[in-house]
Amino acid sequence: MSARITAVTVTPVAFADPPLLNTVGVHQPFALRAIVQIRTDDGVVGLGETYADTAHLVRLNAAAEAMVGVDVFALHSLRAVVDECLGGLTVTGGDGVAGMITTASTTDRVFSPFEVACLDIQGKILGRPVSDLLGGLVRTAVPFSAYLFYKWAGHPGSADDEWGAALDPEGIVAQARRMIDRYGFGAIKLKGGVFPPEQEIAAMHALREAFPDLPLRLDPNAAWTVDTSLEVASALTGVVEYLEDPTPGLDGMSEVARKAAMPLATNMCVVAFDQLEPSVRRDSVGVVLSDHHYWGGLQRSRLLAGICDTFGLGLSMHSNSHLGISLAAMVHLAGATPNLTYACDTHWPWKTEDVVVPGVLRIENGAVAVPTGPGLGIELDEDALARLHQQYLDCGIRDRDDTGYRQSLEPDFVNSSPRW
Amino acid sequence: MSARITAVTVTPVAFADPPLLNTVGVHQPFALRAIVQIRTDDGVVGLGETYADTAHLVRLNAAAEAMVGVDVFALHSLRAVVDECLGGLTVTGGDGVAGMITTASTTDRVFSPFEVACLDIQGKILGRPVSDLLGGLVRTAVPFSAYLFYKWAGHPGSADDEWGAALDPEGIVAQARRMIDRYGFGAIKLKGGVFPPEQEIAAMHALREAFPDLPLRLDPNAAWTVDTSLEVASALTGVVEYLEDPTPGLDGMSEVARKAAMPLATNMCVVAFDQLEPSVRRDSVGVVLSDHHYWGGLQRSRLLAGICDTFGLGLSMHSNSHLGISLAAMVHLAGATPNLTYACDTHWPWKTEDVVVPGVLRIENGAVAVPTGPGLGIELDEDALARLHQQYLDCGIRDRDDTGYRQSLEPDFVNSSPRW
Repeated sequence: MSARITAVTVTPVAFADPPLLNTVGVHQPFALRAIVQIRTDDGVVGLGETYADTAHLVRLNAAAEAMVGVDVFALHSLRAVVDECLGGLTVTGGDGVAGMITTASTTDRVFSPFEVACLDIQGKILGRPVSDLLGGLVRTAVPFSAYLFYKWAGHPGSADDEWGAALDPEGIVAQARRMIDRYGFGAIKLKGGVFPPEQEIAAMHALREAFPDLPLRLDPNAAWTVDTSLEVASALTGVVEYLEDPTPGLDGMSEVARKAAMPLATNMCVVAFDQLEPSVRRDSVGVVLSDHHYWGGLQRSRLLAGICDTFGLGLSMHSNSHLGISLAAMVHLAGATPNLTYACDTHWPWKTEDVVVPGVLRIENGAVAVPTGPGLGIELDEDALARLHQQYLDCGIRDRDDTGYRQSLEPDFVNSSPRW
Repeated sequence: MSARITAVTVTPVAFADPPLLNTVGVHQPFALRAIVQIRTDDGVVGLGETYADTAHLVRLNAAAEAMVGVDVFALHSLRAVVDECLGGLTVTGGDGVAGMITTASTTDRVFSPFEVACLDIQGKILGRPVSDLLGGLVRTAVPFSAYLFYKWAGHPGSADDEWGAALDPEGIVAQARRMIDRYGFGAIKLKGGVFPPEQEIAAMHALREAFPDLPLRLDPNAAWTVDTSLEVASALTGVVEYLEDPTPGLDGMSEVARKAAMPLATNMCVVAFDQLEPSVRRDSVGVVLSDHHYWGGLQRSRLLAGICDTFGLGLSMHSNSHLGISLAAMVHLAGATPNLTYACDTHWPWKTEDVVVPGVLRIENGAVAVPTGPGLGIELDEDALARLHQQYLDCGIRDRDDTGYRQSLEPDFVNSSPRW
């Protein structure tokens, strides 16, 4: 059966996003994503989803044009085509994650949504779910964590959102309660780096008291010095299952890791294959948060998983604001990854809009059942795609900029790492 | 489409093998292999090939029985089933490689032929070659090396074989000439560890003189001490592209690697995933020889390839005496592995019998074109299988024993490592 790529479309969309705080700023009113559709000569269509920053869109569109004619099973060739076409571009930036993950591989980041779309097509041709192309499921539902954020009540000038403000330990516990009541999460992650460490330590202790049995994590996005990290690690020993990116860089992380009682996790200092060896040699991290959006798709995320398994590293999964195509890809991957034993992260509860037909993807008892239909097992809602694309055109945001948005509201805000 | 395993057969076969010398002894008159056939509820049959030592057959048969009912896409589950069933067995040994590779994973070794057979079935269902299940071809033909052996003219008591004796540098050069004239190989490997190092150094220099443009390798199977290894390395600097397993163990290899000018390769001290981290930390080897028969099949060999790529290790491919099913699996894997940049090893020229229908697999210009038919793209010759199975029953050999066979002919022969 022929399966050559005949057409590829890349559609930027915007969806409403609450004012979630982090150490570099605050989420803008809309989050951007790009929806990739690949069509083959036999008329099968596959879906992918990625960032939509300007430079990234330039790269995606160049890659989309270059890959026409490639067979959807020829993934090595497809990656080589992407790599070659990127070599001819001069754009910079466009990481889509507000400057927090800057050292990932551009080729892997651009290749990823196309690889996912090709696997979607492979699965559809075969009449099998994508998970079957990844070795088959080891769990039929994938556990996620309640991903808590310090947040404002609403975007300035707009009505409050349904979650309201969370700016202190009580607000965080209330947010956790609401999120867990609704979705049944069995693990909790707090995005930190927003308030001085002692306040965030207090929030973690408040969460421990309110949810004595749930694993907890804190992620300040490298907001702390080595010394501060060690103080926090000491205060949270026995409280968190891992501490995520307390401090910047492999050397700083290594220094903290040597003395901290809990494992350190990262989605900042190990975000590409060429950072794995230096990390292993320094013992910088104990847990890698995978993310197929910048690790080069599902097959290369399997490779990352195998490397973690081989080198004694734990494996968890990172998220940033995403829609249903990404969630489907995440759960196929996680469901087929034996050593992904931590609950995965997702921003899913924070969004109110999507481009996929609702129903298949649901968080129940803290987990998402892996779709069982062919390919990713989800369907694009063309009307919703058009609406969210129009929203992209109208919203005026072209690059994610948490820092700039926050500075527009709080002119004294400075983005610095480490901050404390 | 359903693809549940309904029946699995494991058929031991024996095929004539010349008296090839190595540091532990000499090849017996027959080499043993086990042919695996998996049948699904839809009547599709997949093929695999592995060792056939007694203990290995016990494990294979137990695994074969345990896996009935498993879906051929559920490879994680299949491996778990194999792993669990092996836990209930008490047999020991059965590595199939004359005691030269003793630390490989038993689960990976037993799982491998079944995984290959499942991929053969997946490809047949999809109407695609197995290489398409591994990311697609990066080369349509896989280069192999001329694998030279010191050898006797024939097995004692039998007529000389067509290759005749090779017991000195001149004999090795003549063997190389004949093999290269016939198959067009563009690289040469000599199995060493048979004669004192100075004689094997002389053979390598004779090969360099006779074939000035071909990459050369020497593999003494850990026959040398660290000091001897360094002397040989010094004598062969600029002559060999890599030196294979000069000395036993990760620490000895590390010591040699620090001072030798050429990379060290291995299929002895890194033969399982749990040996990769200690090897990387010691910088013991520069090149890993993969072998899907003990690295757990084609998907896990892809993982090994990705690990080598990630940690800056070269990748080559090991062989021991094998038939066409193994060669087909090897070339699908090698053809779809971007960083497998060395010519692969194969014993193929040494055999005169097979279980596959001839025609698809040929060495031309030193390379084997990857089969393009569905699955592995080869066909079992049922008559040949029956004949080679009868030969297994008749030959009396039940475990490969190069040392015992040599001692039966040369009672003073001692298997020792390091020997010099």
